Amino acid sequence: MPHSEALLLPLSIIGLIAASMTAALVAGRRSMDWVGVALLGSITALGGGSTRDTLLGNYPLAWVQQPYLLAVTTAAALATIALAPVIHRFRNLFFLLDAIGLVVFTIQGCDIALKTNQHLAIVIVAGMISGCVGGVLRDVLCNDVPLLFRAELYASVSIVTGLIYVMGQRLDISPDLVTLVALGIGLTFRLLAIRFRWEMPKFVYDRE
Amino acid sequence: MPHSEALLLPLSIIGLIAASMTAALVAGRRSMDWVGVALLGSITALGGGSTRDTLLGNYPLAWVQQPYLLAVTTAAALATIALAPVIHRFRNLFFLLDAIGLVVFTIQGCDIALKTNQHLAIVIVAGMISGCVGGVLRDVLCNDVPLLFRAELYASVSIVTGLIYVMGQRLDISPDLVTLVALGIGLTFRLLAIRFRWEMPKFVYDRE
Amino acid sequence: MPHSEALLLPLSIIGLIAASMTAALVAGRRSMDWVGVALLGSITALGGGSTRDTLLGNYPLAWVQQPYLLAVTTAAALATIALAPVIHRFRNLFFLLDAIGLVVFTIQGCDIALKTNQHLAIVIVAGMISGCVGGVLRDVLCNDVPLLFRAELYASVSIVTGLIYVMGQRLDISPDLVTLVALGIGLTFRLLAIRFRWEMPKFVYDRE
Repeated sequence: MPHSEALLLPLSIIGLIAASMTAALVAGRRSMDWVGVALLGSITALGGGSTRDTLLGNYPLAWVQQPYLLAVTTAAALATIALAPVIHRFRNLFFLLDAIGLVVFTIQGCDIALKTNQHLAIVIVAGMISGCVGGVLRDVLCNDVPLLFRAELYASVSIVTGLIYVMGQRLDISPDLVTLVALGIGLTFRLLAIRFRWEMPKFVYDRE
Repeated sequence: MPHSEALLLPLSIIGLIAASMTAALVAGRRSMDWVGVALLGSITALGGGSTRDTLLGNYPLAWVQQPYLLAVTTAAALATIALAPVIHRFRNLFFLLDAIGLVVFTIQGCDIALKTNQHLAIVIVAGMISGCVGGVLRDVLCNDVPLLFRAELYASVSIVTGLIYVMGQRLDISPDLVTLVALGIGLTFRLLAIRFRWEMPKFVYDRE
Repeated sequence: MPHSEALLLPLSIIGLIAASMTAALVAGRRSMDWVGVALLGSITALGGGSTRDTLLGNYPLAWVQQPYLLAVTTAAALATIALAPVIHRFRNLFFLLDAIGLVVFTIQGCDIALKTNQHLAIVIVAGMISGCVGGVLRDVLCNDVPLLFRAELYASVSIVTGLIYVMGQRLDISPDLVTLVALGIGLTFRLLAIRFRWEMPKFVYDRE
């Protein structure tokens, strides 16, 4: 296992847990039952990677190969129910963990596309799908227009992270260093975007 | 063809018909046109198995291999339009047929995952996806938060059925007997859950 | 490259552009940000073909193999933002381009299923998925009940186009001629349906 994977694996588990717990809170706001909480958490956490691999025909999917991932996401979602009374105190921690998830999932997605020799544009898109589609599935299943399409720099963070990672790989720099740099810049970008409420311009069309 | 398949095939056709007809009624409540009724019925009936096979990379899908399944689901959906004036009299029959569908689809899903030597957790999940995802697609396409996440013992019935089936297969009991026992217990569990309005506890989170 | 493909390729690019631009206008009505506009446009334009190929296990997907398609759909969506102030003047042009997209995507979908020797029913369904699913994804992501299920002759146009194309291929007529005839009839049917507001009968069920 290269160093960079030894770094990415624990961070990606943190990302899965954060994604599942934030989805569980969304489920709680809609008074879903415990099964719904576990399902929504797991689909949100694992849906991005699953969509990427299904679109690329990259079988078996991660959770099929490593079913313990389902145990992690289910446990995280159910733990959220128990932790609900105190969880609002950790709001900022959640933003951090969720940002780690976004950036780490993006890098993992790029990695998988690189290994199957995809075009660079597809590598970036694979990273973005890995990082962003879980949240889209969560919002669709909760009957919301996906947050990804409406607000916040989320997809943009994913694209920038992917670009840095891909460029670095091309430049023959040590993969570990590239991973760390992409991770650092992506994370900083995301946290600054949250802190200063950076947003993309909106397209408002109200004819007809 | 083993005995258990000779039993499961007609029951699964019944399940497809029930799923398509209940979806057609949901389409009728939203005044969809006839094409929409046929599409929603077919997607609901065949969507669970299709999702399972797409996620497992198990090609070709059942309806691609056996296109008569599309004729069955389309005919069932369209027949519902004709039967609409009297269909409310058969409400309890529908609950029964829908429960048969849930349990039979679950067992079929487990079977397919067993045949491709998946981990036991994945076998259970494959069963649950087969039994439950069709209804999720129906609800998403109708712009509802999926019932599966909110109420009723549906996923739970699927998990229990899958567990019994998988345990039985492991115990070297005759496959036919295991199928019958899983079918009987799953069906009883589902019907009792409907009769006595059993529900999972809900997670209500209303902060922020 | 056979003549018919030399005809279909530019028409399918037109179809992709039209699908992405109409989706961008829908995004603008919901005040999505620029990233959302580009994503919704691309998903709508490429979602039908991607769904077809994922369900048929037909990898790699078109945009994975030819990433320039992503550039086309993204550019079309973003150009819509700039063109928004004048775009309502081209309303009829859009109906025409969108109709071309529906018919061309349908024929391409049939073609791909024919090449993999699918059953004729599956060929028709593959054409319909290619032509119609993009719009369904757009509506689901915008939190609407898909227009496809509710109104307009859209799926019907796709089915008729597919039937003509498949029958023609069987009859040993020149493929170019079959393509032109299917294209002409499908397009005429769609434009007449828009002009005279033809609709399928609706199924209205309001019991319970």
